[in-house]
Amino acid sequence: MQPTRIIVIGGSAAGAKAAAKARRLDEFADITVIQKAPDLSMASCGYPYYVGGTFNDRSQLLCTPAGVVRDPVFFQKAKKIAALVETEVTAIDRAAKQVRCRHVKTGEERALGYDRLIIATGARANMPPIPGIGLAGVTTLLSMADTDYLRGVRDAGQVQQAVVIGGGLIGVEACEALQSSGIQVTVVEAVDQVLTFLDWELAKLVENHMQAKGARVLTGIGVKEFVGKNGALTGVRLADGTVLDCGLAVMAIGVRPNSDLAREAGLAIGAFGGITVNQFMQTSDADIYAAGDCVEIPNRITGAPVFAPMGDLANLEGRVAGENAVCGNTVTFPGTVHTGICKVFDYAAGSTGLSEKTAQRLGIEGFTTAVNASPDKPGFMGARILVSKLLVDRDQRILGYQCVGLGDVSRQIATAAMAIQGRLTVEDVVNADLPYAPPFSPAIDHFITAAHIAQNKLKGRMTGIGVREVWNKIQAGERPFFLDGRNPSEYKEMHLGIGETLIPMGALRSRLAELPADKNAEIICFCKVSLRGYEAECILRAHGYTNVKVMEGGIMAWPYAKKKG
Amino acid sequence: MQPTRIIVIGGSAAGAKAAAKARRLDEFADITVIQKAPDLSMASCGYPYYVGGTFNDRSQLLCTPAGVVRDPVFFQKAKKIAALVETEVTAIDRAAKQVRCRHVKTGEERALGYDRLIIATGARANMPPIPGIGLAGVTTLLSMADTDYLRGVRDAGQVQQAVVIGGGLIGVEACEALQSSGIQVTVVEAVDQVLTFLDWELAKLVENHMQAKGARVLTGIGVKEFVGKNGALTGVRLADGTVLDCGLAVMAIGVRPNSDLAREAGLAIGAFGGITVNQFMQTSDADIYAAGDCVEIPNRITGAPVFAPMGDLANLEGRVAGENAVCGNTVTFPGTVHTGICKVFDYAAGSTGLSEKTAQRLGIEGFTTAVNASPDKPGFMGARILVSKLLVDRDQRILGYQCVGLGDVSRQIATAAMAIQGRLTVEDVVNADLPYAPPFSPAIDHFITAAHIAQNKLKGRMTGIGVREVWNKIQAGERPFFLDGRNPSEYKEMHLGIGETLIPMGALRSRLAELPADKNAEIICFCKVSLRGYEAECILRAHGYTNVKVMEGGIMAWPYAKKKG
Repeated sequence: MQPTRIIVIGGSAAGAKAAAKARRLDEFADITVIQKAPDLSMASCGYPYYVGGTFNDRSQLLCTPAGVVRDPVFFQKAKKIAALVETEVTAIDRAAKQVRCRHVKTGEERALGYDRLIIATGARANMPPIPGIGLAGVTTLLSMADTDYLRGVRDAGQVQQAVVIGGGLIGVEACEALQSSGIQVTVVEAVDQVLTFLDWELAKLVENHMQAKGARVLTGIGVKEFVGKNGALTGVRLADGTVLDCGLAVMAIGVRPNSDLAREAGLAIGAFGGITVNQFMQTSDADIYAAGDCVEIPNRITGAPVFAPMGDLANLEGRVAGENAVCGNTVTFPGTVHTGICKVFDYAAGSTGLSEKTAQRLGIEGFTTAVNASPDKPGFMGARILVSKLLVDRDQRILGYQCVGLGDVSRQIATAAMAIQGRLTVEDVVNADLPYAPPFSPAIDHFITAAHIAQNKLKGRMTGIGVREVWNKIQAGERPFFLDGRNPSEYKEMHLGIGETLIPMGALRSRLAELPADKNAEIICFCKVSLRGYEAECILRAHGYTNVKVMEGGIMAWPYAKKKG
Repeated sequence: MQPTRIIVIGGSAAGAKAAAKARRLDEFADITVIQKAPDLSMASCGYPYYVGGTFNDRSQLLCTPAGVVRDPVFFQKAKKIAALVETEVTAIDRAAKQVRCRHVKTGEERALGYDRLIIATGARANMPPIPGIGLAGVTTLLSMADTDYLRGVRDAGQVQQAVVIGGGLIGVEACEALQSSGIQVTVVEAVDQVLTFLDWELAKLVENHMQAKGARVLTGIGVKEFVGKNGALTGVRLADGTVLDCGLAVMAIGVRPNSDLAREAGLAIGAFGGITVNQFMQTSDADIYAAGDCVEIPNRITGAPVFAPMGDLANLEGRVAGENAVCGNTVTFPGTVHTGICKVFDYAAGSTGLSEKTAQRLGIEGFTTAVNASPDKPGFMGARILVSKLLVDRDQRILGYQCVGLGDVSRQIATAAMAIQGRLTVEDVVNADLPYAPPFSPAIDHFITAAHIAQNKLKGRMTGIGVREVWNKIQAGERPFFLDGRNPSEYKEMHLGIGETLIPMGALRSRLAELPADKNAEIICFCKVSLRGYEAECILRAHGYTNVKVMEGGIMAWPYAKKKG
């Protein structure tokens, strides 16, 4: 029997994984990886950390855990995979079952036949035709070449100011990397928030943290032009005419599927421009699979195809494609719940499932949200506050969870991601059995507390109001009675300054006379995290006040200015 | 209407939580907490960290997050709860619906009537009648008094050596606390391992780590006698006659439910001595609820009642008991999957669901285990190795997961706990969408990798063998062919020294001649973590070797001696 000929186009995450999986399942298959770049199996999600100096050995981006660089020699020896680097596939001839390729340096062309083809061509940067975008100093952060360039900028120490265009995952990571390199960074984001996987009020906390770390963040404004001198960038002109002086600009306004080859070969392409694949990661040509950032996969909650260019998914998809390419269609890939996480200086921000914004866009009705600000562990173990937001559908099923803060966001998002994938409800989570010991969590885990708050809301015991809604009330000239239930010492250290009245929880029952005489007046209670705010609501309701609300997340979730003293 | 009179016996975790929950749901109930100890709402799981000097402000064990000590004044003012401290309940008169109590100092007696009673009397130490157990210097680590005593020992700096009897959670935490205080600790454990929620081979890695940190650990030996002089401890005599000199001994051989009051009142008691409660946390008397370490709750996997004295469960149970006591039976508590975690110096060890040992004891047939040693994040982000073990039933449902190591065990166990509670299978987990970014995880999360290994085993692609089985083979004089697939530099740094042959993966295909001529000979492959070991198995099988196994977890999971150089 002739060995199966498998060609993989692309040798980064999905491609390399598909090839390795195929090899393990068929020792005698003839496997070739074709890679346009000079490197293979690059840890591309690690680029910002090399740029920012978290580590300094470039080869670590290309090494196995045992320290061996994954070059063509390694692929040949350890995996018996022929890796053709600096080789571009120029066309897929489906009728002849061949790919045509060309060496990017020598220009040498050749055709290679396949029995099964796996397309893993990844994504490429969105690069709108902004004037001056070709100036030296304008770059992306998507390739080893970009990474080498940016690391060079760091090491040279010449650039004082940089602008990052786009406040998404890569934009925020680029901001941290450059700011940590001693460069003054301004992030310019066209929409009204960074990290659009978060709802606005949590994103604003992240933005505040970035500002606190010295970065500037401008939202709601676009870039009009890159300004230069002698072909080199000197500034970025914004839509309002302002020019930000800078010697470096990083374009990070997202990526799109690199699906040209597939399109030209007549394969089905989806609405986002990604290659259409079925659950087996098989394209519209039964002999061609695709995986990674070039495909569209189902959103597991809505069932709709989405573009989810994430490194973990690319690896998992590659594994499925590799197996099915050699074994026939035996394993499936279920899609994504859009789980993601991002380090933001010493903050982290993560999300899984649907945000409120997405739920609204999808027209989901009857959902409930709950905002929870509470520590990630006991105070005596160095608690750090987390702010999170849970979203549940009308059947109380967990649909989404997002979390930001200095604390252990990673555990929170992982927990919630599994809760969503397990189709758990609020009732399931309120009594979840999670690992507790003081070094790792409070006695009632932050995620469980979020479910408790949601439960209180769903049972009608707590009427929540979001910080943004409170702010809008104030801007609209409304003057609800604001009740701050903290202690005087806490108030003195910091308070909102929105006309609130301080009545410590322990004194509330004896100071009801200080509340509005009209028991139907709107009263908004809060405290540091709004646990005491909730207790205040319970007390006031019991005493006949009919229009009491809790400002969810309290002061820790308040993203606007605060007052000291 | 008369206010409902609610009495809560016990003011630590479950009792304080039940009282607070009851208050929030009924502002006008008459709520009394009766507490034998002088303190309330103690963060008892934090005791070891105060003893060990992680923090030095004792009041942090008793404070709200806002820094207010939860004393009777706080309970009265903030919660409108009467807290009677240093008050012991001596009897429950169910007919009269009264509790009788006595002040532990004044001896004053009184009777208090209740409409609903909540028993939260906690647990007490197992204290077998070992001769000398009454000597000064023999203590437990279960109360504030114990904690103050042990902190005093740390601060005095007089004790040079201590013995901890019992290698469970508290024993291991006590060991760390005392060893970190400059005291030479020996842990004496009667069974053959520490942390019996782990299977032996993972527990042995923990034990090795404790030894590496300077503690001594003796397993499989009991204590015969406490030796003293002038009423003070001077040593511990073991079953074999050895005397360990010490000025301090901590008894930590477990706790049992403190259910005497309930038993004397005629309430139903379970096989473990805990109060029997239904799903509403209601005892056999409809007006009496119970919660916390004094009860038995269902194991959610087996359905059988178990004794699970954990602080997180106590809080959740208290919440349910408090709500049902005021609202009638409206909420339920589902039980435990035995999730737990423990810091062990800079290691952590955690578990959720069933261990292999437990599965065997329960007679579960057809289960599969998979051991995974792999990093918690990419190498360039400072990867730390985790070793974990997954247990799945014959339907491939996740039944148990345990994990130890220097890395982020907490996220691992939380993820697995939710997978178990969501009744997920291996197929669900192999493509789970978990939060990935290099600061937080590798591209394929450690837990997902564990599922991949399980999948490879279940599909018959990998034949695993455990480290203990390998060791037993060697002890029995068997001489399988051991294939170490690492690089020479790795081998030189450290190797097992069990007669293995080093053939780096990259050379294996060209060096098959060095393998046994008999293709049915037993060949056991491994590497650092046994990924290359698995690749070696794939290659050898393809070349006709019929009896190839992978030593699961490789060298990182090997708990026996290793060789350097």
